[in-house]
Amino acid sequence: MADQFTNAPPPIITLTTDFGPSSRYVAAMKGVILSMNPQVRLVDLTHAIPPQDVRAGAIALAETVPFFPPDSIHLAVVDPGVGSGRRIIYARIGGQQFVAPDNGLLSRLAEREQPTKIVSVEDPRFWRATVSTTFHGRDVMAPVVARLSLGLVPDALGPPLEQLTKLAWPEVQRVANHIDGEVIEVDSFGNLITNVTRDMLADVPADESVTVTCDEHQTHGVFATYSDQPPMTLVAVIGSGDKLELAIVEENASKMLGVKAGAPVRVSW
Amino acid sequence: MADQFTNAPPPIITLTTDFGPSSRYVAAMKGVILSMNPQVRLVDLTHAIPPQDVRAGAIALAETVPFFPPDSIHLAVVDPGVGSGRRIIYARIGGQQFVAPDNGLLSRLAEREQPTKIVSVEDPRFWRATVSTTFHGRDVMAPVVARLSLGLVPDALGPPLEQLTKLAWPEVQRVANHIDGEVIEVDSFGNLITNVTRDMLADVPADESVTVTCDEHQTHGVFATYSDQPPMTLVAVIGSGDKLELAIVEENASKMLGVKAGAPVRVSW
Amino acid sequence: MADQFTNAPPPIITLTTDFGPSSRYVAAMKGVILSMNPQVRLVDLTHAIPPQDVRAGAIALAETVPFFPPDSIHLAVVDPGVGSGRRIIYARIGGQQFVAPDNGLLSRLAEREQPTKIVSVEDPRFWRATVSTTFHGRDVMAPVVARLSLGLVPDALGPPLEQLTKLAWPEVQRVANHIDGEVIEVDSFGNLITNVTRDMLADVPADESVTVTCDEHQTHGVFATYSDQPPMTLVAVIGSGDKLELAIVEENASKMLGVKAGAPVRVSW
Repeated sequence: MADQFTNAPPPIITLTTDFGPSSRYVAAMKGVILSMNPQVRLVDLTHAIPPQDVRAGAIALAETVPFFPPDSIHLAVVDPGVGSGRRIIYARIGGQQFVAPDNGLLSRLAEREQPTKIVSVEDPRFWRATVSTTFHGRDVMAPVVARLSLGLVPDALGPPLEQLTKLAWPEVQRVANHIDGEVIEVDSFGNLITNVTRDMLADVPADESVTVTCDEHQTHGVFATYSDQPPMTLVAVIGSGDKLELAIVEENASKMLGVKAGAPVRVSW
Repeated sequence: MADQFTNAPPPIITLTTDFGPSSRYVAAMKGVILSMNPQVRLVDLTHAIPPQDVRAGAIALAETVPFFPPDSIHLAVVDPGVGSGRRIIYARIGGQQFVAPDNGLLSRLAEREQPTKIVSVEDPRFWRATVSTTFHGRDVMAPVVARLSLGLVPDALGPPLEQLTKLAWPEVQRVANHIDGEVIEVDSFGNLITNVTRDMLADVPADESVTVTCDEHQTHGVFATYSDQPPMTLVAVIGSGDKLELAIVEENASKMLGVKAGAPVRVSW
Repeated sequence: MADQFTNAPPPIITLTTDFGPSSRYVAAMKGVILSMNPQVRLVDLTHAIPPQDVRAGAIALAETVPFFPPDSIHLAVVDPGVGSGRRIIYARIGGQQFVAPDNGLLSRLAEREQPTKIVSVEDPRFWRATVSTTFHGRDVMAPVVARLSLGLVPDALGPPLEQLTKLAWPEVQRVANHIDGEVIEVDSFGNLITNVTRDMLADVPADESVTVTCDEHQTHGVFATYSDQPPMTLVAVIGSGDKLELAIVEENASKMLGVKAGAPVRVSW
């Protein structure tokens, strides 16, 4: 590759919001960041989080962040409590860095791996000179991630915290010959992603003696891939996030079945 | 930060269109630009402008461009008159650069700050060799912004102009103890952004003696932030663009109330 | 421009998927690529391909790729057969590089210009260590394009192939004084793009003696641009891709007429 890049690559800042695809609010945050660090690399993680759906944001982060290089900086804004007393936090989790409202958005990541640092973002010297009451993503978090990308030490942002806010996540129950979980996410194909992981199914038979039920819908067997079955078939597979998911081959399962996040799922054998 | 970047950072080109999120037409413009200047930094400002809605494009530009670094180049294509006699213009406004059809798209920016230069884009030497009649964004404007990013002097593009095309914007009327404005934009959360600015409300009482009416809907008080009120409440706040906006806490006000841009808004006290 | 860029510009990787705008699955692919080559330039070609619509993906690629610089690398994932026996291929076509499932996604490009190289992507050394059965875009194709951008020789990826999979595309028939084609794409404005090209119309009169019929809808004349006719008029133009298209001035023709891809189109004179 090109010789001029023998030094460190540009730092990565990803953006996760509920602002909707192609929102000008995202562009405003990018403008703020680029005004402070024109060399940073910006990557959209997703802006399709349903409005104010902190859980969906937490899942998107937890599922996607592990694919990014170490030390990437992730700015996440799903922030129904903006302007209220909720904190903004910096956290270091799994070798990566996060700036987000402390409303549980980072709690799914923090469940998997203990944060090695949590800081309460409080020092206004690192923010925009004027801070709106309704858009801390632009006025507080964007300048903070820009400064971090320029080398600011996280401890400068404010006092350390022991804990970040946690959300209660639905737990998977295993009793005798069945596992009870639920749909935790509907992806853009309408596939129903559950909280039942590959590991939980390790000793469950993979053949058609297994029944997967979701609401009143039922399918038999857990398959390796969608295309193992004919179109329009309801099929259970272990998806790319190592979780059981339900799909209708070449169709949108969520729309066809009317199933959304929160629907109960049972695996029995 | 990295040593190799001691020189000027890459020039920024933003893109604003009504092509819809993730349109291949946007990618074609990016390809044209990158073919001419592979070093430029491309930023999507928004592509979610409703089709042919020049006013919405003008607002998005005016609200977002100020967050970008000086000298950024902004390419904007909301162009219902493409192929007709409408001009394409280069303008320098507020220390930033713009290339757009001369249909009012830059007029909201130009209201706030007088353009310091306006040029009619006429010299085909700086365009693609073949120019379609329906996609000047790709065939005229994209190559022009690429050349500007490489250092082309704007005066080379064509003859100077005195004026750019202006749109008539709804004016806010203040009479005695009320202010009459209107909804000028619905954002991606469904919040109703009005043309009543923070400044206009400077001497208006902030307490519950103020009534804000929009169509037949009414709320009392102007709050600092959405979360000051319980979910499902209609609330008036000064939003992040320093404008009065109406929101329903944790819901989509535009959908719930059936209110769109153009709806009358009255603040009375 | 800046001095530090006297060497080669960063390689370009474009991404085309049916994952929907702003999908976290796209971000996962970008994370994988950036983890391997932090210097690459990523460009979204489009993610708005309708789910599993290989034809729409093939058209988007064929229409957009020519605007990108030579040697750009294009990763395309519209992959209903993921996890089945379908191959993944590398192809060199028209001076550009492609990695995609071998399901016809590259066949429209390959119709126009003979591939100069086709390789079956088979050597798992160049993939992620763990490959899911449902997301080869992330686990196989993303690492492969990252390695290509770092200089990997395509022949290393697997054995050469003679042919790539072709889709049958609807053919245009010309008989006496009419041309029969069809709508092959609906763009984001609702314009109906047909497979009748500018070349096919070269000797057809351009005046109002020409009738263009689509389903039961009819218009006269082929115009240079949409704005030649008043709003709400059905108009036929040669669009920016050098194809006949039908549009309703300032409206969405697909929605207003209920016409989709596949609808028959006749030009008669």
